[in-house]
Amino acid sequence: MSSRRNIILTGFSGTGKSRVAAEVARILGWELADTDADIVRREGKEIGEIFSEKGEEFFRLLEKEALIRACDAEGRVVATGGGVLMDADNRRLLFDSGLVVGLEARPETIYQRLSTEGQGRSPEERPMLAGDDPLARIRSLKAERQPFYSLAQWVVQTDDLSEGQVAAEVVRAWQMLGGRMDSSGDGDPELAAVVTHSRGSCPIRVGWGLLDRIGEGFRASGIDGPVYIITDDNVFPLYGRQAQRSLQRAEIEAHCFIIPAGEESKSWEMANAIYHWLASRRAERRHTILAVGGGVVGDLAGFVAATYLRGMPFVQAPTSMAAMVDASIGGKTAVNLPEAKNLVGAFYQPQMVLADPHTLTTLGRRELSEGWAEAIKHGFIMDADLVSVFEDHASELMGLEPELSTEVIRRSMAIKAEVVSQDERETLGKRVLLNYGHTIGHAIEATTGYGDWMHGEGVSVGMMGAAELSRRMGMIDGDVVRRQGELLRRFNLPLKAEGLDVEQIFSAMSLDKKSTGGAIRWVLLEEVGRATTSRDVPPEQVREVVEGLL
Amino acid sequence: MSSRRNIILTGFSGTGKSRVAAEVARILGWELADTDADIVRREGKEIGEIFSEKGEEFFRLLEKEALIRACDAEGRVVATGGGVLMDADNRRLLFDSGLVVGLEARPETIYQRLSTEGQGRSPEERPMLAGDDPLARIRSLKAERQPFYSLAQWVVQTDDLSEGQVAAEVVRAWQMLGGRMDSSGDGDPELAAVVTHSRGSCPIRVGWGLLDRIGEGFRASGIDGPVYIITDDNVFPLYGRQAQRSLQRAEIEAHCFIIPAGEESKSWEMANAIYHWLASRRAERRHTILAVGGGVVGDLAGFVAATYLRGMPFVQAPTSMAAMVDASIGGKTAVNLPEAKNLVGAFYQPQMVLADPHTLTTLGRRELSEGWAEAIKHGFIMDADLVSVFEDHASELMGLEPELSTEVIRRSMAIKAEVVSQDERETLGKRVLLNYGHTIGHAIEATTGYGDWMHGEGVSVGMMGAAELSRRMGMIDGDVVRRQGELLRRFNLPLKAEGLDVEQIFSAMSLDKKSTGGAIRWVLLEEVGRATTSRDVPPEQVREVVEGLL
Repeated sequence: MSSRRNIILTGFSGTGKSRVAAEVARILGWELADTDADIVRREGKEIGEIFSEKGEEFFRLLEKEALIRACDAEGRVVATGGGVLMDADNRRLLFDSGLVVGLEARPETIYQRLSTEGQGRSPEERPMLAGDDPLARIRSLKAERQPFYSLAQWVVQTDDLSEGQVAAEVVRAWQMLGGRMDSSGDGDPELAAVVTHSRGSCPIRVGWGLLDRIGEGFRASGIDGPVYIITDDNVFPLYGRQAQRSLQRAEIEAHCFIIPAGEESKSWEMANAIYHWLASRRAERRHTILAVGGGVVGDLAGFVAATYLRGMPFVQAPTSMAAMVDASIGGKTAVNLPEAKNLVGAFYQPQMVLADPHTLTTLGRRELSEGWAEAIKHGFIMDADLVSVFEDHASELMGLEPELSTEVIRRSMAIKAEVVSQDERETLGKRVLLNYGHTIGHAIEATTGYGDWMHGEGVSVGMMGAAELSRRMGMIDGDVVRRQGELLRRFNLPLKAEGLDVEQIFSAMSLDKKSTGGAIRWVLLEEVGRATTSRDVPPEQVREVVEGLL
Repeated sequence: MSSRRNIILTGFSGTGKSRVAAEVARILGWELADTDADIVRREGKEIGEIFSEKGEEFFRLLEKEALIRACDAEGRVVATGGGVLMDADNRRLLFDSGLVVGLEARPETIYQRLSTEGQGRSPEERPMLAGDDPLARIRSLKAERQPFYSLAQWVVQTDDLSEGQVAAEVVRAWQMLGGRMDSSGDGDPELAAVVTHSRGSCPIRVGWGLLDRIGEGFRASGIDGPVYIITDDNVFPLYGRQAQRSLQRAEIEAHCFIIPAGEESKSWEMANAIYHWLASRRAERRHTILAVGGGVVGDLAGFVAATYLRGMPFVQAPTSMAAMVDASIGGKTAVNLPEAKNLVGAFYQPQMVLADPHTLTTLGRRELSEGWAEAIKHGFIMDADLVSVFEDHASELMGLEPELSTEVIRRSMAIKAEVVSQDERETLGKRVLLNYGHTIGHAIEATTGYGDWMHGEGVSVGMMGAAELSRRMGMIDGDVVRRQGELLRRFNLPLKAEGLDVEQIFSAMSLDKKSTGGAIRWVLLEEVGRATTSRDVPPEQVREVVEGLL
């Protein structure tokens, strides 16, 4: 369908069309076309002047031409004037050109916005605000136009939302009504997905070599610094410095804080050290924190961003596979306490996630494999096609063939983004599906002291356990279990955890955060590409399956 | 208003109100109330029959009664007829009762749905579908009603969505907009307001002696513990232990962590000590943290609640005036760093705020006065009537007459709650109005090292400065300034800060968080009960006014 290619914002004056359009364009990396601004630029006059010198009819002709120009390409966010939908030709043009979204507001809100924003810019605002009873004028003009506004394919009620929230609603509607991120052709090929959440939205970009262009990316997103990079001493010489230089080339002030690599750095004390550094640099609420590294760096930097000045803008640039396809998306941030991992933290969404699969080329083979485990898991729970891609191209993916790896990572990140968008805080039972393989996986990590086993390795064994439980519950047959096992094996991932103690595993499982009120909530497979949860797995079955894994 | 938690679906015929309502009720586990179905059941006749036998006027009366019955409880999804919003009484009833969501569809869609659904059930469908050009009939009737439909607080465009998708959109809007609306409770006299925010809602209760009944209150809200009380060593013997005992009487497990009283406790180290205590007590994500104390206790406990396990339920029981009318509402939590106050924190909304003005009886006179400053400020920026109450009852209020003090505190908390609901994160320019008097007030506190001057005393002087600036900008006349001065003086609040250094005050003002990009954003008075902001106050005027205060 050709008519999802642009996003057109319509609505009465004072509903925020221009600013929301600019924000939507920023989120999607699209071009902005503002018809009023275009007319002003071409005519060299303010709209009010044109209106009063040449009359409304002449202005409407200019407006029609501007609309035609605006719709003459794809991948544009078009902000229109408040009156365009009254004209049948305009309606045809706009509805043919893309998704028409109406911004709504109550007359009282419009009156308040127009009267506090100073001089109205658009032709209808001045007469509206003049006279005795401007609110009544707004009401009657709006009532007259309402039938046309109601033709929009989507409506966002803006009264109680910030501009960022309205923009996120527009992006979400576009996605829901068939907007596609894989944008074959002229969209933004690096955009994998957009996470929409209660406070706004977060574009996810994936591109080979992206980190070296991060400065341009920040500029394009309107981030002009200063930027505080948090990275570790392994990643800094490889990629932290690269990001810093790219930012500096784009004339964005960028400072680095380098933590020692490793889980021990994900501590309260380290967060405190970063706070003092930020204070000494006089970081402000509008500055940006950028995490360049794996999960430890992302979690720590995210926690600092969530809490310094009650929240600073935050960008994730994950450099490990697991951080890309999992940890960087979804807004979970944390530090460890001596008592347990991730005990202190916050849900805090990044502004952007920028993944550069080129950074994976310096990972060891084992790190790479454990990273693929999470991506393969995404396939099994949500996307059967992705599982096939893994099966058909295992060796190219293990060799990090640029195009294919980038594509698979993009799809895997899109899955995580979709799940997080639907269930931001794990309250609706959707996000929990991502824990497929994690109940046993976490228990393996915990009983071995978080060191011998890498996270993805534990997940791999856990996936085998969960698949076997699914089989015993009659949900899948043995072929699916074998198919999963073969694929994991091709990625050098373990299918068993021999030598571990079953009692320890059991006790660790019951302490897992996902168990509430005793019964463990298992994530099980219904088929390849579809998962569900169940609390009804009999303990004897669990015991037998776990024993079979050890 | 007792029924703040309903969802009401409105919209034209053929937009799917009844079926979507049923689906929303199913998703939320709520009761379904379908007014048309209710009428049919009670009258024993189809609506078409009623319409043709008794006429439209009679039907509208039955409909109004059905609406009143439908809105007479909470937790209901109400499907209404297509014409209900045309009636002003109905509108008032529905908007008071919960979130009004409009379902929209294009006339073509409506025509298609009505003509394929067989016999239209609602009164307007038959005449609409009869006649020569039913589509034109639909268009014109819909156009006529459109201004009323557009009053809905949320709109879902249903043309391209399945009923399940529409229902999901309604649920999402409800979650996003919280339980929105309402302030005073006729069912519950202690309910001052409900803060609605991006993640839900927070009732604010005020009652003399409430703390001694906190256990029942927790039980009534479904909180069954364990509860971790954070309090300080001044408050604990007076009220912390009282709260703990009340909880224990209600058979709720309650533990106390007692911090030393004073600003020094609002530290990173103290937060850490509480984390370790929580870990040692094996606190879980579903347990509750209760702050019993003033602003320091509330900010610290709130920060811990925001961050332990990425967020635990949190209840504020403020025991100082300033904490009641200001700090406990709005979700600002923080700890201080050596570099500055409140440098690390989070926006985190409590589940409830429970204020017991009886706790104020043990405050010193000066503490009490400085607390009233914030409440008086609320009157000047938002509620002229409240200012009159202060003027008429200054001595009773200074003497903490139970009924009157409780009422004034309730109103003052309701104002804060309303502002916070409208602008949760200070992004919309509304919440900033609460900073009336704070630009100069903070500067006074900062230059005197946060000790000599109490917060409310600084605010009092700052209010005088801001009022004088408003006068000089031609917004109010001298009477308002004098009136404010007299009232503050009756509450023993200072109008001047003699002996301070003007240069120091100036430099502190420019470092204030509210200044962005150089120009200070002043909160000024337009009249008693109405405030606005301005960045255009000439620096010379500011200097003269500040000099006049010192």
